[in-house]
Amino acid sequence: MRVVRYDHQGTARLGVREGSEVIDLSHVDRDLPRDVADLLRSGLDARDALMSAARSSRTRLPVADLKMLPPAVNCGKIICLGLNYIDHAAEGGAKPPDYPMIFLRAATSLVGHNTPMVRPSCSDQFDYEAELVAFIGRKGRHISRADALSHVAGYSLFNDGSIRDYQWKTSQWTVGKNFDGTGGFGPEFVSAEELPSGATGLKIQSRLNGHVMQDANTKDMVFGVAETISLISECMTLDAGDILVMGTPGGVGAARKPPVFMKPGDICEIEIETIGVLRNPIEQESR
Amino acid sequence: MRVVRYDHQGTARLGVREGSEVIDLSHVDRDLPRDVADLLRSGLDARDALMSAARSSRTRLPVADLKMLPPAVNCGKIICLGLNYIDHAAEGGAKPPDYPMIFLRAATSLVGHNTPMVRPSCSDQFDYEAELVAFIGRKGRHISRADALSHVAGYSLFNDGSIRDYQWKTSQWTVGKNFDGTGGFGPEFVSAEELPSGATGLKIQSRLNGHVMQDANTKDMVFGVAETISLISECMTLDAGDILVMGTPGGVGAARKPPVFMKPGDICEIEIETIGVLRNPIEQESR
Repeated sequence: MRVVRYDHQGTARLGVREGSEVIDLSHVDRDLPRDVADLLRSGLDARDALMSAARSSRTRLPVADLKMLPPAVNCGKIICLGLNYIDHAAEGGAKPPDYPMIFLRAATSLVGHNTPMVRPSCSDQFDYEAELVAFIGRKGRHISRADALSHVAGYSLFNDGSIRDYQWKTSQWTVGKNFDGTGGFGPEFVSAEELPSGATGLKIQSRLNGHVMQDANTKDMVFGVAETISLISECMTLDAGDILVMGTPGGVGAARKPPVFMKPGDICEIEIETIGVLRNPIEQESR
Repeated sequence: MRVVRYDHQGTARLGVREGSEVIDLSHVDRDLPRDVADLLRSGLDARDALMSAARSSRTRLPVADLKMLPPAVNCGKIICLGLNYIDHAAEGGAKPPDYPMIFLRAATSLVGHNTPMVRPSCSDQFDYEAELVAFIGRKGRHISRADALSHVAGYSLFNDGSIRDYQWKTSQWTVGKNFDGTGGFGPEFVSAEELPSGATGLKIQSRLNGHVMQDANTKDMVFGVAETISLISECMTLDAGDILVMGTPGGVGAARKPPVFMKPGDICEIEIETIGVLRNPIEQESR
């Protein structure tokens, strides 16, 4: 099942996408959450609630007509991994970490599919990062590796847009990862049963203006989804509606000689096999 | 005005504290938010709404009888500063930063006044950090330093409890700052007009079992509240309900010879002049 979140006259709605159409749900059930994180937190069986609403809806909308929003903005935590592919660690002159390198993003940094990612006025070092997202669907602490994937409700795509000079102003990357409008997220929530276990073995790519910039496979993550859940939940409760943003492979712009950064007018696409394509035009901050 | 958040039969309520009593508000107005962050975000004039509710309430409860909760858990962002006092940077062998060192906390790490802070089963390196909290009351981006304090609604106290070995497992501190139940927050929201501009010039202390461990003044922050707001808002929107946790002075446990860490049965107190005292017993994680 594939769930999109889109704007309808200024209000967010959830819908189930089938082919080139979206079955509108909020239209049917006004109490249905309007954010995938809220849905996962609601205690409903997300899949059942959505499927039931979808069956009773007669409203089908062409995907192409909808303004897509990030699948979730009410995430309790947006937990991001750094240097989680060996080749990306190496291109930055680092060894692969022996423990997940974690930072958090805030919702103010998120933008949806086909929505501009924003290059800020204070920097021209706006870099792309193709990443897998895992949605936590069930709360837990001290989750064993064997049990970890039963806590994952689904997956999506992320462009972990990074303002490199701000990321490296101090040892802590957080500020360079949290500029408004730099985190592309979407296009949709893909439920876990549509993908291989742990979303492993999937081709992952970024393309800038059609040129392939990153080209790898999710099997090459240093810490896979299950291991990450097990390690992080030793420290903190993972709640339904939290997301994990699983790090990026080699080929980022800052590591190229000469560096390649995203400019206004560029189009950046993130693709993971079976999950889909997240596409964002790049726009200059207006002020 | 001083606002507390407390538990009433499993539900959070806001109240105005006056002396040793709390004027219950949720009792009067069921639509009043039950979290200071929600209140600040609600678009109401927070002070007016609370004062009006307080005037019409006849329910006064002894503070001593209430189970205090963190003043806010629905913060959009919990933005924390590292190494923001010169003596604390020096004791860790670092120079004072020339740009704020930022990490984010998640709400799962918060505990209220008089509630146990939890030493996790995986580490005995549980350290205290006395900090000032500033509540953002008005949304903004690219906020000038001159205008910054008009965005601050009030202040509180924080014990930025840190699991040092996890904080230093990689270059990114975030995981060691986000263990469940390690962030003491409270006891109350103190509105800005009760304090000096920017809450500067106030004595700040931590005490472990009554012994003074940190003893400094908020005027010694490397980046004060106004400068921090101006610098961070260059990067991201600061929303009403976001909080800034302003970093800790010298004297932390990890920098002592030999190191001093918090153990089950200890009592840690954070005090800032005029704002109050945040007190937390230390408890071992039960599992």
